[in-house]
Amino acid sequence: MRRLIHLPLSPFCRKIRLVLEEKGLDYRLVTEKVWLRRPQFLAVNPAGTVPVFIDDDGTRVCDSLAIGEYLEERYADPPLMPVTAADKAEVRRLVYWFDLKFHQEVTANLLYEKVNKRLMGTGTPDSQAIRAGLDNIKYHLEYIGWLVDRRNWLAGEAMTLADLAAAAHLSTLDYIGNVPWDRFPPARDWYQRLKSRKSFRPLLADAVPGIPPPAHYADLDF
Amino acid sequence: MRRLIHLPLSPFCRKIRLVLEEKGLDYRLVTEKVWLRRPQFLAVNPAGTVPVFIDDDGTRVCDSLAIGEYLEERYADPPLMPVTAADKAEVRRLVYWFDLKFHQEVTANLLYEKVNKRLMGTGTPDSQAIRAGLDNIKYHLEYIGWLVDRRNWLAGEAMTLADLAAAAHLSTLDYIGNVPWDRFPPARDWYQRLKSRKSFRPLLADAVPGIPPPAHYADLDF
Repeated sequence: MRRLIHLPLSPFCRKIRLVLEEKGLDYRLVTEKVWLRRPQFLAVNPAGTVPVFIDDDGTRVCDSLAIGEYLEERYADPPLMPVTAADKAEVRRLVYWFDLKFHQEVTANLLYEKVNKRLMGTGTPDSQAIRAGLDNIKYHLEYIGWLVDRRNWLAGEAMTLADLAAAAHLSTLDYIGNVPWDRFPPARDWYQRLKSRKSFRPLLADAVPGIPPPAHYADLDF
Repeated sequence: MRRLIHLPLSPFCRKIRLVLEEKGLDYRLVTEKVWLRRPQFLAVNPAGTVPVFIDDDGTRVCDSLAIGEYLEERYADPPLMPVTAADKAEVRRLVYWFDLKFHQEVTANLLYEKVNKRLMGTGTPDSQAIRAGLDNIKYHLEYIGWLVDRRNWLAGEAMTLADLAAAAHLSTLDYIGNVPWDRFPPARDWYQRLKSRKSFRPLLADAVPGIPPPAHYADLDF
């Protein structure tokens, strides 16, 4: 059985869960509290991060970007990447946009300050970081709106890994009630399309002990 | 003519220059002072980062990770990626290791503190960051040595994008004399093999005005 070593509120793990669900692959989730830095886990992934994916033939893949590419190559159908090198480059540009830039400017400032510090016992939230995150998210929601105003999905006419990467980040921030959907209707409409997909259901069923999501989190008509 | 919009000491740009050289592709370098945030450049790449690659058919690719994948797909020969999905995953894991982890733990603490702040006029180097960078680099050089002790190159028997990504970072730190090669002979031997390649020559000829490299920088027998 395939395994995904993960954390429920990690946007990178959520992206891979969405990919696995979209591709209809069976897998088992294994939680790893990465902050404990267990030697057994560091032997699996010296970077000490999740997700780590173990395929049914034992192939082990570390890093969500590498896992995304691996799954696309190994399980091509249904595709989450377009066909030409240039179109793929646009998908990848946006995956990195969300996994690197959005992550640094928004996810780290909000989710990590509010949730990770609490889970890991590494101090209290930094209010300046939270303000920055709440400010930065607006510009990214604007950008999503700008993209879907010109295209059906973020990277083009078909849904791709770029949409899943972006939605994975936003889903974690939605879990802590930090996405101002009302002020960004085009981004909300795009997210609603994703949230309504079958692949999204496991994410909407997540419940982290001690950190209940807001009422609208699992609501498809938010 | 292909163009690479770049900065001479950006490790991400250097990685792509190495790829272009290894693949024997002609291209022209165009320097972009990204910190000026010129509107014309932001229209080309809204992330405001270099490298940006413009292919001979006008295809524009932003983000060094996306450019690396694009070039591999569009100009497959000679290959810088292995054949199987699992082997590619190991190359990608290491590319991300250097472009994300090493970058954050070492390059940002040393190069950005010492050089970028000066070029951009954004203050004086933070001595605490520099100390952290000098400390962190040891553990990465150790890891390189550990890998090449088990494999011919970082990701396996053939030289790949992983070696170029790692060498690109180290070449920028070598430019500012911050790599303790003497204490890590296996990493030094590996770097020497890369530095001796024809693809490396343009990097060794770089000279940033006001920031001369140390004497050993271009020396193949360092």
